[in-house]
Amino acid sequence: MDLSAIPLVDQHAHNLLRPESARDFAYPSAFTEGYAAEVVTRHVQETIFFRRSMREIAELLGCEPRLGAILEARERLGFEEVARRCFAAAGFEVILLDDGFMPDRVMPTEWHNRFAQVRRLLRVEFLAEQLIGALSSWEAFEEAFRAALHTPDPEVVGFKTIVAYRTGLAIAPPDPEAVRTAFQAMRQQAERGERIRLAHKPLNDWVVWQTLEAATHLRLPVQFHTGFGDPDLDLRWANPLHLRPLLEHPGFRRVPFVLLHASYPYTREAGYLAAVYPHVYVDLGLAIPFLSQTGMAFAVRAFLELTPISKILFSTDAHLIPELFYLGARWGRRILGEILEETVRAGDLTVTEAEDAAEAILRRNARALYAL
Amino acid sequence: MDLSAIPLVDQHAHNLLRPESARDFAYPSAFTEGYAAEVVTRHVQETIFFRRSMREIAELLGCEPRLGAILEARERLGFEEVARRCFAAAGFEVILLDDGFMPDRVMPTEWHNRFAQVRRLLRVEFLAEQLIGALSSWEAFEEAFRAALHTPDPEVVGFKTIVAYRTGLAIAPPDPEAVRTAFQAMRQQAERGERIRLAHKPLNDWVVWQTLEAATHLRLPVQFHTGFGDPDLDLRWANPLHLRPLLEHPGFRRVPFVLLHASYPYTREAGYLAAVYPHVYVDLGLAIPFLSQTGMAFAVRAFLELTPISKILFSTDAHLIPELFYLGARWGRRILGEILEETVRAGDLTVTEAEDAAEAILRRNARALYAL
Amino acid sequence: MDLSAIPLVDQHAHNLLRPESARDFAYPSAFTEGYAAEVVTRHVQETIFFRRSMREIAELLGCEPRLGAILEARERLGFEEVARRCFAAAGFEVILLDDGFMPDRVMPTEWHNRFAQVRRLLRVEFLAEQLIGALSSWEAFEEAFRAALHTPDPEVVGFKTIVAYRTGLAIAPPDPEAVRTAFQAMRQQAERGERIRLAHKPLNDWVVWQTLEAATHLRLPVQFHTGFGDPDLDLRWANPLHLRPLLEHPGFRRVPFVLLHASYPYTREAGYLAAVYPHVYVDLGLAIPFLSQTGMAFAVRAFLELTPISKILFSTDAHLIPELFYLGARWGRRILGEILEETVRAGDLTVTEAEDAAEAILRRNARALYAL
Repeated sequence: MDLSAIPLVDQHAHNLLRPESARDFAYPSAFTEGYAAEVVTRHVQETIFFRRSMREIAELLGCEPRLGAILEARERLGFEEVARRCFAAAGFEVILLDDGFMPDRVMPTEWHNRFAQVRRLLRVEFLAEQLIGALSSWEAFEEAFRAALHTPDPEVVGFKTIVAYRTGLAIAPPDPEAVRTAFQAMRQQAERGERIRLAHKPLNDWVVWQTLEAATHLRLPVQFHTGFGDPDLDLRWANPLHLRPLLEHPGFRRVPFVLLHASYPYTREAGYLAAVYPHVYVDLGLAIPFLSQTGMAFAVRAFLELTPISKILFSTDAHLIPELFYLGARWGRRILGEILEETVRAGDLTVTEAEDAAEAILRRNARALYAL
Repeated sequence: MDLSAIPLVDQHAHNLLRPESARDFAYPSAFTEGYAAEVVTRHVQETIFFRRSMREIAELLGCEPRLGAILEARERLGFEEVARRCFAAAGFEVILLDDGFMPDRVMPTEWHNRFAQVRRLLRVEFLAEQLIGALSSWEAFEEAFRAALHTPDPEVVGFKTIVAYRTGLAIAPPDPEAVRTAFQAMRQQAERGERIRLAHKPLNDWVVWQTLEAATHLRLPVQFHTGFGDPDLDLRWANPLHLRPLLEHPGFRRVPFVLLHASYPYTREAGYLAAVYPHVYVDLGLAIPFLSQTGMAFAVRAFLELTPISKILFSTDAHLIPELFYLGARWGRRILGEILEETVRAGDLTVTEAEDAAEAILRRNARALYAL
Repeated sequence: MDLSAIPLVDQHAHNLLRPESARDFAYPSAFTEGYAAEVVTRHVQETIFFRRSMREIAELLGCEPRLGAILEARERLGFEEVARRCFAAAGFEVILLDDGFMPDRVMPTEWHNRFAQVRRLLRVEFLAEQLIGALSSWEAFEEAFRAALHTPDPEVVGFKTIVAYRTGLAIAPPDPEAVRTAFQAMRQQAERGERIRLAHKPLNDWVVWQTLEAATHLRLPVQFHTGFGDPDLDLRWANPLHLRPLLEHPGFRRVPFVLLHASYPYTREAGYLAAVYPHVYVDLGLAIPFLSQTGMAFAVRAFLELTPISKILFSTDAHLIPELFYLGARWGRRILGEILEETVRAGDLTVTEAEDAAEAILRRNARALYAL
């Protein structure tokens, strides 16, 4: 099933590195969630994702399918031309950017509008860290944080939380005393000039709680990192099943919860939540295109086992280099097409239903969810 | 492999809705474990299970494959005729009914004997709730509950517990003091005229403990809800691995533990338990027919990876509408046939072994286990 | 893809039973992780692994594919000839033996050199139990245990821990007080003449901690039992994700952690750890050959989804009978060949890459890791 005519809504991605930042950035590191030197310089090159991607990038850039040749071609073509080729081949209609990832090394969000219509996802931990750095009293912080959540930039179409990376998805109702204590600890770090890192459970939980309240008020979806990611994350606490108390909370029933990254390897668990809760959605990003074809197919199949098609979203989770946007778009269309064909062959869907499902997953569901 | 000649033993299902109860029952809600309005009225219709089932039900009822047409055909044919067609096409020999699900809205258990030989599964939480409502002292309740478990109706061939829905499968040896306190709390609810809901961990655990003791004495199997279900359930605590202390308990070694619903998504975990414990059995119901074909195939394949064929049971988990019995029977035979064929092609089983496996899973294992 | 020309490095197996011990050993029990009488005498024979293996062993021994005929053929051919046939057909270059499994009933480690080059894996819990039995003071034990770890027999190329079986993989920094108390409790057992079994969490954790320190010093890998095994094990605590604190520990970054048995069913979890941590490796043993072909394929595919090929190791986990070495070798080559072919057909790897991957997984990775 050829899905190349469907313009994509990429519901979760990140900004591109600025060319000057790219200079001290190891290109292979964009292809792994690991960050240890040995992973980045050696083991990543032994993954199927890296091997397959080198061939596909080489074809796009017109060079030999070797890392060295690709690096030379990128240099020769220049940043803008590489980006132009990747986005032209990808075919996005809208891209939602979480611009809180490596914020001081990436291109401005609005710059990406040349490739597709761009909307913002507000990464709430980054916002909180900035405000903690700037404001010394709890009262001032609390007021500023709430104000920022409740009156975001009009380009913001949703929130994004990385609490899974910091203190895990088993979020508890925040205890005011503990929250303030955590804030004071972080302020002391700030005053000593240390880098601020929001990783105090009561305060992280409070940040999520505030986000859900603002999202309820503004009717905006909240994206949760779930499942695999870099080793900063304890995968045990990135299982979306831990979100149950929030999903059951009467105050948050109108907030769409978007479970990112196919919650890999908790993909069936995520699909179950999206099947029984009206306000839960699942996403294919990172699983596509970072896995083998078998792995990408697993994610799509696992969702289709139980999850309503109206709840499945597409994204690339592309970041830093334009090639990931290209690869995510290419493999999103291709794997989805293959699995939908398989579904038609088995008699689970008709051709018409499968074609409609492709359009829903790649574009329509996200347009409706984010009111694009 | 055509398994249509094998009469089925459905080792776990529920009673049909009475026609008058069916009037205020949303038909699509029988096709999802969700119960929120938006799921039942909208999202369920976007699942593969719903789409596929509409086509198959329409064919059986002789109408257009649309929800509206099916509802009209059901009205036109009448409850008894729809039920007759479904059961005739299904081909059951014996059906075990857990008649504690929506007990005041369903047909009497013995009524179902017109379709197949019917035996009962005693849902112990329902029994306990009834007795708590009727008896004000702990002593009276304890005696009555034990008596009811130890001298059940002769039609009862096994017990069923939904403790996974209430307080989870991590069952602890009950502390007498805490059990009585929980009983008193429930009695107070009863006296205030509130609906009684057994959801106090010590008391729920005590109920399971009593059940296992009675099951040991009577040599009856105990069915455990495991894995997915409606969102009343915290899926983290429905993992059958939590049953380990009970499985290891020297007093309960002679009780067959039946893990229902392929423990989806903990299917491999369940299959492992059935492989290493002589008294653990696994079941395919709900996974078949509520998943995509890929999902149903996953459940069968996952069990065959490690689990003895003598430990795998078939059921439909059908409830409320006769169509689910038909769909469960149809897909049970079909998917099992397909996977066994695959196993023969691979050389894992001979044709004779595969044919025997089909008969064991669809019929013989349950006949032996429940002494039918 | 025919991989029969690649000599295998079996990076984890156990010694063969002595012929006189084999007499009171139930042959089918070698084909299951269960040990209850009913499993060993009956249910194991209903698994795909047993059925398939009977046919393959019968072919190798030249007899009818029935258990009885195989037992007769083994008797007729004799232990040495059966072993000779199995190892000749298997084609090992090196075998690493954990010789702490049933140590008083098996052949000496060096005896196995007739079949392949043999190296030792030191099972640290067995070592600790021996020393606890022999030494009455904590100080003497501590010194002897550390000395044994730090100056092992030159044949030792790695350590092996079965802490997953005893007190689980959630290993905590050992508290000296609790460790000594546990030691005293075990000494009392020893003095009462009871069998010593290392299953006191503080002491088991201490044993692992000492092992990791010695491994750091000696630059030796440490193999961890993870995932399924006999029911002595609580599968909840055999999930390799529980190792996170050790993997993140700055002191243990240079120790290669080898996660055995495809961590089944936590195979994707293990693959993730090996993808993001430079010092984590995964292994296919036990999953191959103890599962159906679908199950073995699952393990290989799940690793290839995300894990660098340089991190995947082959083993048989064969134990007690030579047939398991033959079956592990046969199925390791065959399933890996099939999945790599599938990967080539999909375009995920080139033929050259796939051939190289086979050699890496079956041989080269282990040679490098253990400096063979």
